[in-house]
Amino acid sequence: MEMNHSRKTIKENKETSKGTAVVIGGGLVGALCVCILASRGYTVTMYEKRSDLRKSAFTRGRSINLALSHRGRKALKLIGLETKVLEGAIPMKGRLLHCKRGNTAAVLYDPVNKQNIYSVGRNYLNQVLLDAAEKYEGTTLLFSHKLQSVNLMENTITLWNEKTNENITVTADLIIGADGAFSCMRNYMQKQLLFSYSQKYIEHGYLELSIPRERGDKMEKNHLHIWPRGTFMMIALPNQDGSWTVTLFMPFEKFHSLTTQAELLTFFSDIFPDSLDLIGKKELVETYFSNEPSPLLSVKCSQFHMGDKFLIIGDAAHAMVPFYGQGMNAGFEDCAYLNKILDQTKDNIKDAIEIFTKTRKDDVHVICDLALYNYTEMCDLVTTRTFKIRKCIDNILLKLMPDTWMPLYHSVSFSHMRYRDCIENRHWQDWILKNVKFACFILLFMILIAIIWEYLSDAIFEQNISYESTVIKQCSLRNQ
Amino acid sequence: MEMNHSRKTIKENKETSKGTAVVIGGGLVGALCVCILASRGYTVTMYEKRSDLRKSAFTRGRSINLALSHRGRKALKLIGLETKVLEGAIPMKGRLLHCKRGNTAAVLYDPVNKQNIYSVGRNYLNQVLLDAAEKYEGTTLLFSHKLQSVNLMENTITLWNEKTNENITVTADLIIGADGAFSCMRNYMQKQLLFSYSQKYIEHGYLELSIPRERGDKMEKNHLHIWPRGTFMMIALPNQDGSWTVTLFMPFEKFHSLTTQAELLTFFSDIFPDSLDLIGKKELVETYFSNEPSPLLSVKCSQFHMGDKFLIIGDAAHAMVPFYGQGMNAGFEDCAYLNKILDQTKDNIKDAIEIFTKTRKDDVHVICDLALYNYTEMCDLVTTRTFKIRKCIDNILLKLMPDTWMPLYHSVSFSHMRYRDCIENRHWQDWILKNVKFACFILLFMILIAIIWEYLSDAIFEQNISYESTVIKQCSLRNQ
Repeated sequence: MEMNHSRKTIKENKETSKGTAVVIGGGLVGALCVCILASRGYTVTMYEKRSDLRKSAFTRGRSINLALSHRGRKALKLIGLETKVLEGAIPMKGRLLHCKRGNTAAVLYDPVNKQNIYSVGRNYLNQVLLDAAEKYEGTTLLFSHKLQSVNLMENTITLWNEKTNENITVTADLIIGADGAFSCMRNYMQKQLLFSYSQKYIEHGYLELSIPRERGDKMEKNHLHIWPRGTFMMIALPNQDGSWTVTLFMPFEKFHSLTTQAELLTFFSDIFPDSLDLIGKKELVETYFSNEPSPLLSVKCSQFHMGDKFLIIGDAAHAMVPFYGQGMNAGFEDCAYLNKILDQTKDNIKDAIEIFTKTRKDDVHVICDLALYNYTEMCDLVTTRTFKIRKCIDNILLKLMPDTWMPLYHSVSFSHMRYRDCIENRHWQDWILKNVKFACFILLFMILIAIIWEYLSDAIFEQNISYESTVIKQCSLRNQ
Repeated sequence: MEMNHSRKTIKENKETSKGTAVVIGGGLVGALCVCILASRGYTVTMYEKRSDLRKSAFTRGRSINLALSHRGRKALKLIGLETKVLEGAIPMKGRLLHCKRGNTAAVLYDPVNKQNIYSVGRNYLNQVLLDAAEKYEGTTLLFSHKLQSVNLMENTITLWNEKTNENITVTADLIIGADGAFSCMRNYMQKQLLFSYSQKYIEHGYLELSIPRERGDKMEKNHLHIWPRGTFMMIALPNQDGSWTVTLFMPFEKFHSLTTQAELLTFFSDIFPDSLDLIGKKELVETYFSNEPSPLLSVKCSQFHMGDKFLIIGDAAHAMVPFYGQGMNAGFEDCAYLNKILDQTKDNIKDAIEIFTKTRKDDVHVICDLALYNYTEMCDLVTTRTFKIRKCIDNILLKLMPDTWMPLYHSVSFSHMRYRDCIENRHWQDWILKNVKFACFILLFMILIAIIWEYLSDAIFEQNISYESTVIKQCSLRNQ
């Protein structure tokens, strides 16, 4: 196959632009990043390897846990899109737990201030962001362009234009990789010396099922539904059209052990009985056996920048499992944070990307770990008494001291506190509660000791009296 | 640049061969692997990207901590090379610690059975192994062949012959990647779903220095010399020609902070005063400022095999920092272990490589972690009183119960116990010692209580007597 190769430099409008930027990836984080950089006055070109999703027929895509919360909303607000996005989103005020017998229990996310997280369609949100991106002056959105290689020495990247079968080499003042969990730009960074990196697949996979709109109204609205089953679970998030996206998370082994229709249906009627009629037996069997379960990946990097121009953000920098609903929110926060650092450094890109690595690393490592931990919470802990008691104590203290006592989920989903501080805050709260418990125990112990002491001293006193009277009697006898 | 491309299949001598094997990498582990497979009756082809080191002039290479111990020796013994290798090695019976004031203290590795580890030159050992490998019937050693790509679907690999500028595609029944810490084959494995992986650079680097043979005799022979300095250290290993290879391990920051000759010499005369005359001021300055410190990498993978034919071993599968002297030994043990599994599975390669992953993973993860931990021990703990007391207790118990009480270093370096069991053994020993300590404490406490009780009961008895006599006196007075 013959291939042309051309070399291009993005032309900057010297009069108005602050500089040129390239964003690799036109997914959620990439498109938002284009908007934010363009709003700062950069001339931005975006390269996305797939075709324009606004022009293609709807394809079944990843949609698990697209839950928009405060961090994502703050970033959208920066470019004036918060309201528009929320219009197309469905508020979820809490978790609705489905037990095996079919009865349900609601656990509100924020019973004190009644705040919600929002279920939002990936495609809808991506469309809104791409539409906004191309309205900025100086932005160019190019689709079907796949990143081929990164040349660190020359500060260039090479992309393959699928349509023209042409390779182009481009450069810019700032080159951002927002090319997802399997990032090509990160692959290049990874070969650098001193770049520590880990990719961790958990032993569980996920499979998407669906409750169609005609049966969707039987589900209680405005909740994230969970069927917690100890070591695995199923969840359902509402869609705008009344249907629900259901996701089954289970060990791969378990997925592969259900090999016949009968086994699958028995499993569902035993484990998720109330979901069977909602999903539909026929649809369940069809979807289950025509799709492979997908893996769940967590990625951590020791740095996000490379050289003077390259930066990775979003899933490329910190893919996480979806159990805290923070993947997209953390990616959006990356964009807002980059904007803030560019403000602080007065658009000195070299300094900005170095600061980004230095100050953002701990935060995203914490949220990756929290996301892994939250699987245990969602599968199992939500149903335990300890969890419920702690949630209750947290809510009371949040009500009494809203500025002092912010529970972990609250600080992650309903605040802009640094992720690192969220977990430190939780450790501090654990320490307090542990010590209060210990103090109560000591107090009880002391009361017990005091009671015993009281009893014993009475006994000794009585014994002394009786001893004294015996001696007196003996003396009297001796003297008689 | 034009490139030819040919497709070759390794020809197997059907009459005598058990099957065909390809080994990528002709370093220590690769060459040993060729010998072991050839000795089993495989027709083996080895591809090494560099030229044949036996034909090139000596090049300064990596040499840190090439300490041969029991595991490596056992693997060499399999192919009858143990004696030959030990002939060219220098026994080291213990660590010789150099304190800041210049005085030294010896800590034997095995004061009970007087076992040694052996300092061996990388090039010497590699030559011995390559010489042995090419003597087997059916082995072909090809140099200047660089792995280009791996085709999992077709079970082939493509290599580039640097000399002919030809690409060749080969296949075999078993394809082994022994291509080192930056393994190209592992890069392909890493892109597989469910392949978890981590690469971790520590914040310290190393720089090789040297004590020439003319001054080498001033160093006490048959020891691994260490200058432990809390958060960093320098070590020296003896070479066959009387010279010493010195390695300075330090944070990169510290390396970069010494920018002038004066700073470097002041640092050495303050921190490693007795080494300055041995290394030589001129040589130190020259080597220090003409070389960059090298990084130290630790690599962990969740699996070592891919498909039905591919396996990675040695540093490609588990690169580790050099502080336990187990990098080469663990790689050699991989070869011996593969040999054992091939025996067990009667050369069923698919089963063998699956078993290899399943049963070897925990062991190599443990030794990677131990190697990281041992840096702290070598830099700091060796000089502490707790370490010395523990070492002393361990040695006494080893002497008394050689089959029951095997100290950690002993089990790693002087036994063939699985690495995983070595660490479990240590945890069990820690538990015992902690409980003995606790029992001693309780015993002491009880003795103390008994003494106090004895004292108090005497006092109460005397008090009662005096009380009794007082009462008697009072009675007498009242009755008078």
